Amino acid sequence: MDVWGDCFTIAKWQQYVAETLESAGSTPVFNINPKDVREFDAIFLGGGAAGRFGAAYLRALGGRVLIIDRWPFLGGSCPHQACVPHHLFSDCAAQLMLERTFSGQLWFQQSKDKTVSIKSIIEFFRRGRVGPHAVMNYQSKEQLGLEFVLNAQPAIIDVHTVQVGDRQFHAKNLVLALGAKPLEPGMPGSQLKGVFNSQTLVENLDFEPGNTAVVIGGGKSALEYGCFFNATGRRTLVVARHQIMPMLKDAESRAYAILMMQEQGMEFLENAEVMEIQGDAQGRVRSVSIKTSEGITHVDTDFVFMGLGELANSEQITQTLDLQKDDKGFIKVNRRMQTSIPHVYAVGDVTGPPMEMFKARKEGVCAAKNIMGQTSEYKAADYPDFMHTHYEVCWLGLSEEEARQRYANVKVMKLPPDNPNGLDVGLPAGDRMMLYLMAKPRMSGFQKLIIDGDTRKILGAFHIGYGAKDGFQYLNYLVKKGLTIDDLADMDELFISPSYFIQLCRLRAGDPHFNDM
Amino acid sequence: MDVWGDCFTIAKWQQYVAETLESAGSTPVFNINPKDVREFDAIFLGGGAAGRFGAAYLRALGGRVLIIDRWPFLGGSCPHQACVPHHLFSDCAAQLMLERTFSGQLWFQQSKDKTVSIKSIIEFFRRGRVGPHAVMNYQSKEQLGLEFVLNAQPAIIDVHTVQVGDRQFHAKNLVLALGAKPLEPGMPGSQLKGVFNSQTLVENLDFEPGNTAVVIGGGKSALEYGCFFNATGRRTLVVARHQIMPMLKDAESRAYAILMMQEQGMEFLENAEVMEIQGDAQGRVRSVSIKTSEGITHVDTDFVFMGLGELANSEQITQTLDLQKDDKGFIKVNRRMQTSIPHVYAVGDVTGPPMEMFKARKEGVCAAKNIMGQTSEYKAADYPDFMHTHYEVCWLGLSEEEARQRYANVKVMKLPPDNPNGLDVGLPAGDRMMLYLMAKPRMSGFQKLIIDGDTRKILGAFHIGYGAKDGFQYLNYLVKKGLTIDDLADMDELFISPSYFIQLCRLRAGDPHFNDM
Repeated sequence: MDVWGDCFTIAKWQQYVAETLESAGSTPVFNINPKDVREFDAIFLGGGAAGRFGAAYLRALGGRVLIIDRWPFLGGSCPHQACVPHHLFSDCAAQLMLERTFSGQLWFQQSKDKTVSIKSIIEFFRRGRVGPHAVMNYQSKEQLGLEFVLNAQPAIIDVHTVQVGDRQFHAKNLVLALGAKPLEPGMPGSQLKGVFNSQTLVENLDFEPGNTAVVIGGGKSALEYGCFFNATGRRTLVVARHQIMPMLKDAESRAYAILMMQEQGMEFLENAEVMEIQGDAQGRVRSVSIKTSEGITHVDTDFVFMGLGELANSEQITQTLDLQKDDKGFIKVNRRMQTSIPHVYAVGDVTGPPMEMFKARKEGVCAAKNIMGQTSEYKAADYPDFMHTHYEVCWLGLSEEEARQRYANVKVMKLPPDNPNGLDVGLPAGDRMMLYLMAKPRMSGFQKLIIDGDTRKILGAFHIGYGAKDGFQYLNYLVKKGLTIDDLADMDELFISPSYFIQLCRLRAGDPHFNDM
Repeated sequence: MDVWGDCFTIAKWQQYVAETLESAGSTPVFNINPKDVREFDAIFLGGGAAGRFGAAYLRALGGRVLIIDRWPFLGGSCPHQACVPHHLFSDCAAQLMLERTFSGQLWFQQSKDKTVSIKSIIEFFRRGRVGPHAVMNYQSKEQLGLEFVLNAQPAIIDVHTVQVGDRQFHAKNLVLALGAKPLEPGMPGSQLKGVFNSQTLVENLDFEPGNTAVVIGGGKSALEYGCFFNATGRRTLVVARHQIMPMLKDAESRAYAILMMQEQGMEFLENAEVMEIQGDAQGRVRSVSIKTSEGITHVDTDFVFMGLGELANSEQITQTLDLQKDDKGFIKVNRRMQTSIPHVYAVGDVTGPPMEMFKARKEGVCAAKNIMGQTSEYKAADYPDFMHTHYEVCWLGLSEEEARQRYANVKVMKLPPDNPNGLDVGLPAGDRMMLYLMAKPRMSGFQKLIIDGDTRKILGAFHIGYGAKDGFQYLNYLVKKGLTIDDLADMDELFISPSYFIQLCRLRAGDPHFNDM
């Protein structure tokens, strides 16, 4: 199907994507400008975060670019199987926590002992996910003027030639933006029905899980999905080989985040390992065996979730191109995103962690610049980060511990403040709903600012609650530029803001030797 | 009662505040350092946003300061009758909109035709509001070392002398931080039972309103409370003398915000006026008469809300001090916060609009600096702003219309983009819950960036959705410093962020002559 020149509305794309996904049809859609006789400056294999942004940037720089993607939509796995469903499920977790906290009070229904259907939430997502796909196709075609081939299985002929069906495309450069997929550990029983990762959960869940979920892993994905399962009313046991939540370096913030998960009933087994998943006669999960420091323990469950990290989608391409990879299969690139083969670039998750959107997109942009003759280097550094529990946990810069190792005069400002009543107080009210403040004060959030008392510069910021994520993007940029408490004190706060950083600084900024607060 | 030297825990303050509010006892609590023999540099009359922050700053600068407040807590009306309950009610509105949208789907209860009790939400707030009071008292006393007298009715002896009970306090300066209160229009029937403003609603509501609410006013307070009443399931009619929502200058953003309110069933009568509120034999509201361009219309209701702006708390003080006021009763100050009487300063709402937290606090800080010999001027300018509907509506800088008047080459980036399907699309998903994206696409939010295409500087930003408020604080600071789309494109976004400003800029930043998007 050729679509160049036809205006595809968002509604039309939505219909096309939905039908193509359901029919599993293999007819590619070609959006190629027949009047542009230039050779392509680059072909991007993969139109996800890295590929789509890289291609858009290359086009904006005046080059000609083609994206080829296996899906019938641009945007990649994010809106289909990854970030978007994860955000939806985390939203559900937050909402369900709210409803349980207020069960039977005000207008809230009785929900204390109810179990919510995971299957129906996933089916709800599966039905609705084509909306963002359609917007991104529309934006890419009508607004960005991108050329692309979708729903395609490309064959790599050589580094300058890619074939789709009987059509060959030539380009000066090839950019591999192939993404990654959840790691599949080879433990006994990992192939049983009832064992999922984030991708297969969305695609394959076809039964209602029972009342116990076992989650393997202690990182972002494990905890985010674990909190969701817990919020649906299921016993949720997280089994981590080492510590859970290791990425949150500030000990106090981490302790708060973990305490809040425990308050919701999450169970954690650290320094523990799932040895085997046992199945029944029908090949369905029946139980798991877990090795802890105290011996082997067995847990009955029909639902196991693997949150163990990502594997590069590099196997297929390296059958054709002799690319250097690291020991985990990620394609090696230099800071210009060049692989070991001239004219072949790689960007995004396929080059390894951090598996974050900004990193993928900026690598795409970096490759585009280099291809178009603008020397550009990129390496992710000093970026803000976040994850979901039932809350949103955001952080940037140094933890208190890291700051104290590097600076002699570290000051800390936080809410709740250190006080004899601990966390059981009515502020910061930085949570999703101010209702919490009135009902269960200890759940009203935690926020912390780490400051160099000598230069008055902000070194780190932590926020456990809700509504600070958007701000952390800008705050991190400012912190990298040397933001001080005096700068913060001079800002105009939008009261009641989820984070009280401006306010906390203003209360102290008059004092050249301000104290912790 | 003298409390200096005793450590009052947050729990102890909570108990004290709750008991004092209930007993309506008039015993002041004195927190005065008996060992400090210095004269006070200033006495702040009022310990709300302006007074507490001004006093804290003055103390941080090394001065001695006393706060005297009529309440048994510091923090002023905000956590007691104003910002905090308004946020709570707006949170309830957002939550109720969610529940109605998903009524009977997934785990949501049937709520389509249910009416939620306003009285029980207000009673819930009234029971819980002492939590933040206690934190602020603790913070002020133990962390900031402030001296104060609470639960006090001070008498102004002269500009240097204030008396509480039989104790006189002397200071070099007096700072009036007396706040404001809702305007009480004198229309016939405005004294009937069932007529409320934001303050009296929280304090006095003692019956369950019927199924129709009439809201008088078209500004922030009127719409914020109106949306809450509407979300509880009541017919809500907003009667505005001119246009509603005049503060949101960007026409397209304003139209979106109004459309979303209408979608929830809000009714607006613009260029209309409530002529009279009729009562029954028991002195309760029975109906209102409204004059519109089409004549007089009558609406049966037992519940009228006045959201008509603020009146300075200046009557009492001007009986003692001959202060210059403007025609609305606000105390006149220069940019140093000095009134017409030497050594008397005024800060916060008592000096007039904008009635915002940052303005009150920064005026307090400005007065503190001048009192301590640091010449300082302040005038609110170029600040970010927001209001609640069922959403959070944030804005900063110029509207598209204002920008086009001043700049020759204005570019606009927005989500949803201009497209043949209008707003009925699945992005930006900038709403409180990603669930909306799947169920009712048009409700997924609206965001817009106004840019000078020549300098590439950001001129304005608008966000209707949720979760961008914290970010607008920092974004406004950056915009004032000349933030460009290239700066934004270079930031590290926390995906999925509620606002897509960074992403939208990155998609276009490669192009020196980028287009609208």
